[in-house]
Amino acid sequence: MAHGPVLVTGGSGFVGQALLTAFAEADVEVHATYWPDQPATPLANTFWHRINLLEPGPVEALMRELVPERLVHLAWYVEHGRFWSAPENLDWVAASLHLLRAFAASGGRRVVITGTCAEYDWSVGGPLSESTSPLAPATVYGAAKDGLRRVAAAFAHQEGVELAWARLFFMYGPGEAPRRLVPSVIRALIAGEPVLTTEGAQVRDFLHIKDVGRALAALLDSSVVGPVNIASGKGIAMRELLAVIGQATGRGDLIRRGALPTPAGEPPSLVGDVRRLRGEVGLEPGIDLATGISQTVSWWRERAGSAEAG
Amino acid sequence: MAHGPVLVTGGSGFVGQALLTAFAEADVEVHATYWPDQPATPLANTFWHRINLLEPGPVEALMRELVPERLVHLAWYVEHGRFWSAPENLDWVAASLHLLRAFAASGGRRVVITGTCAEYDWSVGGPLSESTSPLAPATVYGAAKDGLRRVAAAFAHQEGVELAWARLFFMYGPGEAPRRLVPSVIRALIAGEPVLTTEGAQVRDFLHIKDVGRALAALLDSSVVGPVNIASGKGIAMRELLAVIGQATGRGDLIRRGALPTPAGEPPSLVGDVRRLRGEVGLEPGIDLATGISQTVSWWRERAGSAEAG
Repeated sequence: MAHGPVLVTGGSGFVGQALLTAFAEADVEVHATYWPDQPATPLANTFWHRINLLEPGPVEALMRELVPERLVHLAWYVEHGRFWSAPENLDWVAASLHLLRAFAASGGRRVVITGTCAEYDWSVGGPLSESTSPLAPATVYGAAKDGLRRVAAAFAHQEGVELAWARLFFMYGPGEAPRRLVPSVIRALIAGEPVLTTEGAQVRDFLHIKDVGRALAALLDSSVVGPVNIASGKGIAMRELLAVIGQATGRGDLIRRGALPTPAGEPPSLVGDVRRLRGEVGLEPGIDLATGISQTVSWWRERAGSAEAG
Repeated sequence: MAHGPVLVTGGSGFVGQALLTAFAEADVEVHATYWPDQPATPLANTFWHRINLLEPGPVEALMRELVPERLVHLAWYVEHGRFWSAPENLDWVAASLHLLRAFAASGGRRVVITGTCAEYDWSVGGPLSESTSPLAPATVYGAAKDGLRRVAAAFAHQEGVELAWARLFFMYGPGEAPRRLVPSVIRALIAGEPVLTTEGAQVRDFLHIKDVGRALAALLDSSVVGPVNIASGKGIAMRELLAVIGQATGRGDLIRRGALPTPAGEPPSLVGDVRRLRGEVGLEPGIDLATGISQTVSWWRERAGSAEAG
C-alpha cells in the first residue's frame, strides 16, 4: 500500500529522533515539526517545519500545505521534573485536539498519538494490559493524556480516522536528556562521582529508544487502533539496572545503594503487557538491556571525551 | 460564610438564565458572560460581560478584573441537532481547560462545571449513579465532557480548587429553544398542528429548568466535589410526557403516536439516581411535571398571542 508523506510532531525530541531514524531507514518521506530549535543531526527524507503547535494558525497552514494522510503526534510539554504537574499539560490537551481536528478536516486517515503508562492505576500489581488493567492516573500529566485519548478516540472514530494510542513506558538510550535518571547516573559514574540511590527494589519496564522508534513506525504502518503498550514486557528492579550501568562503566563501586529513602507511594512494579505490540503490531525488541546500556555508556563517553577535548 | 461575586459563563443560555434567577432570588452578586447577544431580561445583582471564551486573551483579562473565588461554567456549543457530533466540542474542551487554568491562577476556590447524562453507558439499565454506573459516552459531545472532567478534576485537585461536576439530565420549562422537543410539541399543539411521534416507550428523566437553576446554585454553595446528577430521579415514558402536554394544551387529539419509527439504538431508560443531589446538596425538586408543563404551555401561549397580536 503506497502512502504519502507522514507528518510527525515533536520531531526534535528524544522519541522523535528515534522515530525519524526508523522512517529514514525504511525510506519513508517525513515532514517533522520542531520548536524552537531544529535538531543538528541531518536525517534522510526528513523535511523540517518550525511550528509552535500551541498557536492555532500555523497548524492549519501546515495541514493545507502538506495534506498528510498519516500523522504521529509526539509533541508535548516534557520539562524534566515539572511535566508531572505542570499546567502546560492542559494547553497540550487543547493543542492536540486542535491538531487532530485540523488533520481530520484536511483528509487525514490514520494517526498515532503518544500516551503514557501513567494513565494506568499504578496501585494494581502485575503486567499492565490495554484491555483489562484499570485506568486511574495519579498525576495531571497522566490525567491529561487519559482525557485527551477519550475525546480524541471518539472524534476520530466519528470522522473515520484510525487512531492508535501508544502508551510509552520507560525509555533509555543515546540522546536522552542529561538530567533524567539513566543519563545522570552514567555521566556521574564516567566522571568518577558517587551516585546516591534508594534501595531500588521497585521494578520498571525499560525499552531502548531505538526499539521505541521502530515500534511507533510499525504501529503507524499497521491497522491497529486503540491503546498499545510500547514496552519491553520485562521488568527489572532499579538496583539491577544500576548494577548493569555500574558494570558497563566499570564504576559500580561508586553507587551508594540505600543512601536515599524510597519515596512514599512509589509503585512496586510497572511492567507492560506487550502481547498487542508483539502479536498485532509485530514488533520484537531488538536490543537487550545489557547491550543497550553498554552502547549508551559509549555514547556518553564520546561526548564526555569531546567536552574534555573542547 | 461570606463570599465574593460568582462568575457564571454562558449566562444567556437556558440553564444560565435559570441559575441567574436563582442567584437573584438569593441576593448573590453575579458576573455573567454572554456571547454574542446580551439577554433582554434584566436580573437583579447581575453584571454582564461580553466575552468570547474561545479566545484566550479576554478570559485572562476578566479574571484579573474580577478575581472570582467561585465559578459556574455553563458555556458550551449547544446548536440543536448538531452538538452531539460537532467538532466544536473539541474547541470547548480546550476553552474550558483554559478557563479553569486562568481561574486557578487568579486564586479561584470552587468551581461547578456542567457535564451530561451522556457521559454514562446508556446500554445499562436502572438509575444512573455517580458512584457505581459505568461511563461510556457514545457521542463526541459525551466524550468531550467526560474527557474534560477527568483532566479538570486532576488539575483542580492538584491546585486546591474544589470542583463539582453537574451531570445534567433532561430539562424543560419556559425559555427553552423552540426547536427542541418539548417546545416544538407545545407550539404545534397550540397552533392546532398535528404532531407525529414514535411509540414513545422510552423512559427519560425530566427536571424543570427552575429546579435545575436552584440545584446548580445549591451545588455551588455546598462543599460537594465530584460528579452530581442534576435530575428528578423519576422516569417518565415519552408517550406519557406527550399525554401531559396534550392535556395541558387541550389538543391531545393532534398527537399521532406511532407515526414515526423508533430510532435504532435508542436507550430504553435514562433516569438519574438523585441520592447525592438530595442527601448531600440538599435539593428537593419543587415543581412536579404536570404543574411545570402546564406553566410552560401558558408561557408559550402568551408568546403565541403576542406574535399574533404583533
